Amino acid sequence: MELKVIAYARNGHTDKFGIPRQSREESPILTRIVFEPEYNVPEALRGIEGYSHLWLIWGFSEVDSWSPTVRPPRLGGNTRMGVFATRSPYRPNPLGLSSVRLIGIENGDLIVSGADVLDGTPIYDIKPYLSFSDSHPDAKNGFAEETKDYQLEVKWQVEGTTSIAEDKRYGLGLPRDTKDAITYILAQDPRPAYQDDPEREYKMDYDGYTITFSVKKQVVVVKKIEKTKK
Amino acid sequence: MELKVIAYARNGHTDKFGIPRQSREESPILTRIVFEPEYNVPEALRGIEGYSHLWLIWGFSEVDSWSPTVRPPRLGGNTRMGVFATRSPYRPNPLGLSSVRLIGIENGDLIVSGADVLDGTPIYDIKPYLSFSDSHPDAKNGFAEETKDYQLEVKWQVEGTTSIAEDKRYGLGLPRDTKDAITYILAQDPRPAYQDDPEREYKMDYDGYTITFSVKKQVVVVKKIEKTKK
Repeated sequence: MELKVIAYARNGHTDKFGIPRQSREESPILTRIVFEPEYNVPEALRGIEGYSHLWLIWGFSEVDSWSPTVRPPRLGGNTRMGVFATRSPYRPNPLGLSSVRLIGIENGDLIVSGADVLDGTPIYDIKPYLSFSDSHPDAKNGFAEETKDYQLEVKWQVEGTTSIAEDKRYGLGLPRDTKDAITYILAQDPRPAYQDDPEREYKMDYDGYTITFSVKKQVVVVKKIEKTKK
Repeated sequence: MELKVIAYARNGHTDKFGIPRQSREESPILTRIVFEPEYNVPEALRGIEGYSHLWLIWGFSEVDSWSPTVRPPRLGGNTRMGVFATRSPYRPNPLGLSSVRLIGIENGDLIVSGADVLDGTPIYDIKPYLSFSDSHPDAKNGFAEETKDYQLEVKWQVEGTTSIAEDKRYGLGLPRDTKDAITYILAQDPRPAYQDDPEREYKMDYDGYTITFSVKKQVVVVKKIEKTKK
């Protein structure tokens, strides 16, 4: 089957580094689904506002080979699991699947939260989430069970500041939404799994900002935030 | 993106008529996922038995056009909804999505229950179900909400018989699993939605049997069951 791109995702994730590893209900990160001209038909969305959640089927960018086994980052990056037992991109067909919360419709675009996708990700299908067939709250999560609540604490220590107000004093004017989003992303621990060097400084781009941080024990320290250089 | 078929579904649904309209946890219908030679690699399933549920992404057969609006059978077949607000096959990319229960692995095949797919359906991806990102038990189900518990009563009145034992007396030797599966399918009301003629006799093929039934008010009456003529 030849898939047609029906829409593209637009969000602050301009950098692969930092994309959450799964969609999560509580994610504050907004994504705009912008339909391609051929599929930008208002009637095709009729009734969609009755649903609180949607499915997105999308394509992993830059993946062109698969591997029977992969090393899930959450297992430390050294344990090999079957690719069909993971949500890894390195699958025979590099399709991603994310349940997202529907926030609204704006100028024919869908606004959703919780999509774990890169800015510019091609979308192949959008379906309503049906709780009676899609929801299995007691499902057994295999090796992902132990890691599902894994989260870091995030401390903002940007040039001695810790609050939005203070950030503003430094002329950053960081919107609260953006700060919440960055905090959320860092709490998910974007580091490659096999790295645990408390001295190391990481840089991540999000929504026009470049964030510098380090991770010591279970705490992320945000050290610098600046407008991303184009 | 060009999708490769990684496996085919094998089950008793040799007839499009009778396929449940969504996957359901309680479905007794078994499907065998048979991998294509290239993807029949035991290591690719390593760790999958730790999951109770899986996602299948599959292709609707014989669909080669889409429509911005469709008439969901559960709304009586007269109300038009946007295709992205439905799970209709007539989508830009005719992909199906089903959560299924993993029953086991047998000779390299996956055995699952609850797949709402035709025998021979091409499978494009298999992913583990992750309750912490995929399960939203309180999701609002739009227009599907009212119809989710819709179910008919099923009465077996095959030549005066009502039990398996009696069926056997007539030389049918209908396995209990098959009878359970047929009962389950008929309870879902396989009739086209706009039909409500109590005199009409319907025929459905399932797992080598042809079943004749009629529907009066909310009761399905199974009238005849015979080996399907090849």
